[in-house]
Amino acid sequence: MIPTEVIERKREGRPVPGADLEAFLQAYLRGDVPDYQMSAFLMAVCFRGLEGGETATLVRTMLHSGEVLDLSDLPGARIDKHSTGGVGDKVSLVLAPLAAAMGMFVPMMAGRGLGHTTGTLDKLEAIPGFRTDLGLDEFRAVVSRVGCAIIGQTSEIAPLDRRLYALRDVTGTVSSIPLIAASIMSKKLAEGLDGLLLDVKVGEGAFIPEEERALDLARLMVEIASERGLKACALLTAMDRPLGVALGNGLETAEAIRCLQGGGPSDLRELVLVEATEMLLLADGTGDPHRARHIAESKLDGGQALERFTRMVEAQGGDATIVDHPDRLRTAPSLAEVRAEADGVVIGVSARLLGDGIVRLGGGRSKLEQTVDPGVGFEVHASTGVRVARGDLLGVVHARDPGAAAMGSDLLRRALLIERGGTPVTRSLVSHRIHSDGSERLL
Amino acid sequence: MIPTEVIERKREGRPVPGADLEAFLQAYLRGDVPDYQMSAFLMAVCFRGLEGGETATLVRTMLHSGEVLDLSDLPGARIDKHSTGGVGDKVSLVLAPLAAAMGMFVPMMAGRGLGHTTGTLDKLEAIPGFRTDLGLDEFRAVVSRVGCAIIGQTSEIAPLDRRLYALRDVTGTVSSIPLIAASIMSKKLAEGLDGLLLDVKVGEGAFIPEEERALDLARLMVEIASERGLKACALLTAMDRPLGVALGNGLETAEAIRCLQGGGPSDLRELVLVEATEMLLLADGTGDPHRARHIAESKLDGGQALERFTRMVEAQGGDATIVDHPDRLRTAPSLAEVRAEADGVVIGVSARLLGDGIVRLGGGRSKLEQTVDPGVGFEVHASTGVRVARGDLLGVVHARDPGAAAMGSDLLRRALLIERGGTPVTRSLVSHRIHSDGSERLL
Repeated sequence: MIPTEVIERKREGRPVPGADLEAFLQAYLRGDVPDYQMSAFLMAVCFRGLEGGETATLVRTMLHSGEVLDLSDLPGARIDKHSTGGVGDKVSLVLAPLAAAMGMFVPMMAGRGLGHTTGTLDKLEAIPGFRTDLGLDEFRAVVSRVGCAIIGQTSEIAPLDRRLYALRDVTGTVSSIPLIAASIMSKKLAEGLDGLLLDVKVGEGAFIPEEERALDLARLMVEIASERGLKACALLTAMDRPLGVALGNGLETAEAIRCLQGGGPSDLRELVLVEATEMLLLADGTGDPHRARHIAESKLDGGQALERFTRMVEAQGGDATIVDHPDRLRTAPSLAEVRAEADGVVIGVSARLLGDGIVRLGGGRSKLEQTVDPGVGFEVHASTGVRVARGDLLGVVHARDPGAAAMGSDLLRRALLIERGGTPVTRSLVSHRIHSDGSERLL
Repeated sequence: MIPTEVIERKREGRPVPGADLEAFLQAYLRGDVPDYQMSAFLMAVCFRGLEGGETATLVRTMLHSGEVLDLSDLPGARIDKHSTGGVGDKVSLVLAPLAAAMGMFVPMMAGRGLGHTTGTLDKLEAIPGFRTDLGLDEFRAVVSRVGCAIIGQTSEIAPLDRRLYALRDVTGTVSSIPLIAASIMSKKLAEGLDGLLLDVKVGEGAFIPEEERALDLARLMVEIASERGLKACALLTAMDRPLGVALGNGLETAEAIRCLQGGGPSDLRELVLVEATEMLLLADGTGDPHRARHIAESKLDGGQALERFTRMVEAQGGDATIVDHPDRLRTAPSLAEVRAEADGVVIGVSARLLGDGIVRLGGGRSKLEQTVDPGVGFEVHASTGVRVARGDLLGVVHARDPGAAAMGSDLLRRALLIERGGTPVTRSLVSHRIHSDGSERLL
């Protein structure tokens, strides 16, 4: 294997033989291929893509560069969910304990927020004491005892993916569908799962806004899962507006707790129930969707999901009394209300602007090493299609100080498109379903 | 300027603002932009190209990263020639002293052979004692005294180009027309010229075999020159077969000396005269092509060009007696004749195969740091279109030992396409002329 030949083949759009690609990746891991050769290769991949066999080689090499969990001794199906990330997406905080309450085991490795999207780990860390850095043995023990645990990707898992991701992040080579799919799947395959639900966000607030590209990503991830014998289901879900009312880490955790108590915004609850239903169907191949949905509703409304959440928080070192006092997560000192200046109809709520707004308030990151303020964010009470009258409350800004609150108010106002008339166009909450059983349908 | 934004803009095909591109390049020079970001950018350029303004910024930044010669005190026009390189291309060795004999000053910085093409420096270094590493002051002094000097690119000239070229060489990003054009032109602009002749080779033995791409390169280099006030003329010349009879460093130098003596192969002599004519026209804007050609012929046949060559060799430390004994450059111990096995017509002579053959004989490089054997190579007496009879001499291999000679014979045989009948198709020696006066014509 000659590194420049591998790079040139990819640049010219000729397939790279599997043995050469694997040797190239292994040489990179050993340090024999330097970062500057890998980044040139990754950029060529951004233009040329990867062929099926190349993607499989990349996934396999990333997966086996680290440990693969063996959870085969757990007395139930191991099912996880991965979201490509969006604004207000706190589904994992509800879904993991709900799935556990439904009898599944959920060994979830989640990520941090970056750019305009927030991350599950940051939301959980808004709970005082919550540890997302459990070692693999401790992680396995919590999953076994509670049914679910949520931690960050440890250094033992897919180290090649970590290095490639860090390099992509600084070389403008993040947004390549096969690289994204391989990165996600190498980590999820390392969790030793029986089934995987993929929530692929689509719309301006999503990491991949365009429907066609989001569909490509969904199909490719399901294909990668199938090839490695993992059952998978991908849903395309709406990120043309934020999910739920609360945006910002602590505020979202509080909203997730309200959902676990049977309340919370209807879109959040609906998405949780749809995803929980699909997870149960993955766990039990013979299942009936109506029965699965019924079980999900009963475990959410019956308090069993909340009980699992509480136990998970305790097991991961967090202050479980937060469950009874979620308002303690509202820690920002400066609040500012935003009210309608005229009568009108909400035509749109910009998830992208609000996501960027959280970063500006200090609740998100533009670089991975930054820390976040868990208290800041937005409550967005105006939702698309709703008629508002002058003076109605549209939203509340949670900020560190009055200056930031004023900036946030201005930003929130710009994120809300309110007109005298007009018909809002929004995506349906769940639009496509792609399954490793080969089915693909519009919902 | 945020490096990843510069890279992403290029990846997405959006123009990079001049100030950002310059800051990106300067940061690379300072070490603030690492190689892995630059190589990703260069790969994106391979796919997206550079816009006119971007190319100008790259050329300007490379040029001013080092010294720019000031030869304005010389009493005559400073004219140089650059060839994109081919097999058997020893034109510079004849042309530089010929142009000097015609009254021009030729401050030529040339390159080494790489891959299947040989380099002017390696050919000159076949002369015992010849130094191509003169410092800039010594270089200037020889040009002033003799009228011409030929050295390698010194570290003071366009250091940014040197670093980028070295990086491109190991990251599969060499073959991008704007990067090639900018690299060549930044070095030529640093020579402080009044006029530049560009010999862009085209055909299978050229660095860029395809006519359309070669034309793009020629046009872009002339455009870059024009923008910076340098008169330039680009000729597309044939490299679908080798130039001349001798291939290999010392053999080519001997052939160049024969040409300087008024002899040598007709294609070499013709190309030298065409190029010398164009150089004189660049030096004297009012010139008449017929008169210029006449001057070139008289200086070549009258011995004045040879006299300049001899003085240049002396001034650069070389053994000038070589001029009277060019056969002393035939140093390879093992010779092997290749003769026709049947009657036929020479349909083609593969420049590419013979160029690779020189590398295999030890007379070329696959990596820049390798040394070359000046004695080895081929004499190819068969030329396209010629009828040969069984037993006729087709060529001679010059090798280090009998084994290499046998290998070379086999290779030479494969490089010659001889058929019973058939019509050979060859490019005309000079096919296109593109001038900074705006004219472009087929020849």
